[in-house]
Amino acid sequence: MRVAVVQTDPVFGEIETNVRDAISTMEGVEADLFVLPELFNTGYNFVDVQEADRLSESTSGYTFDLMSTFARRKSCYVAYGFIEKTVRLYNSATLVGPYGMMGLYRKIHLYNKENLFFSPGDLGFPVFNLPIGRIGIMICFDWTFPESARSLALKGAQLIVHPSNLVLPYCPDAMITRSIENRVFTATADRVGTENRGGVSFTFIGNSEIVATNGTVLQRLGSKESGVAVAYIDLQEASKKRLNQYNDLFEGRRPDQYSL
Amino acid sequence: MRVAVVQTDPVFGEIETNVRDAISTMEGVEADLFVLPELFNTGYNFVDVQEADRLSESTSGYTFDLMSTFARRKSCYVAYGFIEKTVRLYNSATLVGPYGMMGLYRKIHLYNKENLFFSPGDLGFPVFNLPIGRIGIMICFDWTFPESARSLALKGAQLIVHPSNLVLPYCPDAMITRSIENRVFTATADRVGTENRGGVSFTFIGNSEIVATNGTVLQRLGSKESGVAVAYIDLQEASKKRLNQYNDLFEGRRPDQYSL
Repeated sequence: MRVAVVQTDPVFGEIETNVRDAISTMEGVEADLFVLPELFNTGYNFVDVQEADRLSESTSGYTFDLMSTFARRKSCYVAYGFIEKTVRLYNSATLVGPYGMMGLYRKIHLYNKENLFFSPGDLGFPVFNLPIGRIGIMICFDWTFPESARSLALKGAQLIVHPSNLVLPYCPDAMITRSIENRVFTATADRVGTENRGGVSFTFIGNSEIVATNGTVLQRLGSKESGVAVAYIDLQEASKKRLNQYNDLFEGRRPDQYSL
Repeated sequence: MRVAVVQTDPVFGEIETNVRDAISTMEGVEADLFVLPELFNTGYNFVDVQEADRLSESTSGYTFDLMSTFARRKSCYVAYGFIEKTVRLYNSATLVGPYGMMGLYRKIHLYNKENLFFSPGDLGFPVFNLPIGRIGIMICFDWTFPESARSLALKGAQLIVHPSNLVLPYCPDAMITRSIENRVFTATADRVGTENRGGVSFTFIGNSEIVATNGTVLQRLGSKESGVAVAYIDLQEASKKRLNQYNDLFEGRRPDQYSL
């Protein structure tokens, strides 16, 4: 299958512009699954919870409408981050396909002031069994906790999609380890640009990437420009957890010896 | 404290030579803790279990005698890998100090044909509370399983010593992730050289390294030559699990949301 990471440079608060730009970018690309950044439609640097609330949507809101129309028309899947509004606000990601919404994830490990705006995720780490393969979702800072990708891989994920808004430099190389230790493909879609609001400035590092099960970086974008990178991947590779005659990556775990 | 990784090029089966050479190398180096490779005194490429048995020792055998004498004389600690013989054989590492044996670890994740020679470790991942700091031990292939370093860090390890015999290229960079995700120092002591025995050849990659809690590679040796690298490290850095006002690396774990 063909997975694409879409590296965007959104305008803060301009949902319509950001969704339209993302769709315009994806229009020209052939892929079975597109991965967009965390909060790709709103931007990241909220000054208060009221602002985050104002930019939130239900799972069937404006952004979902356009993404599901796109996915139906192109017969593809799209994973994208947005502010989900229920009685609470979540930093969420939806996986939408030709037949509508296929999956939802609510970010479990909230970073820094996100804790002021969002409730921590309460849906666990989900894996969705699609015709194109078994897709798991985590968001940005989840990478820091090895339990995130591990949970997804143990639940059968062959590809982990990873919408992100990265400001620190560590994640792109760490995702190589996440792929190797779990023998899964990973697709991190990050954004670029700087948001300076309320005296707080964030610069996002881009470096969106697609990593193979053996840690090979199949695609990695730059740190400044928006863009798209596509990789052809065979998800069956992620089902081979056997390293040699004596080692299986998952059967070889020794939970009785761990202190977790 | 000063930690040293000692990268050796042992002669297969020549325990006396290998121990003498290691001590000779360490003599000229000022350090509080020396880390030697996995199976540093025997070599790695056993043709059968009888050979491994012939090269095994009790925890108070020849190698321990010389290492504990060295540690007493130099008022330092040494972690080294050897074949431990009880009623079984283990791929073990001993931590010896000025007052004798301080700790023992038996490799939990055995790699490939090691499964023919050794019994899997049964002591968990141990952390030893020494005057120089809290030291955890894991051996070589344990790095592949994030649960290894995680278990040690959650038990309070500030520095993970990691005797290794690496043949694949992935570990040195992955140990950067291990340091970052746990905010611990790591010291991987690997060997160099090639062992061709019984028609099976292994070439070891060296690249012994010391990594700081933020992932900075403080020292990394080359892939061909034996040698020693020393780093001054402040183990208190590893006790700071707080990343910012809202995130603590360990308190922020969400075991109720994991599937492990």
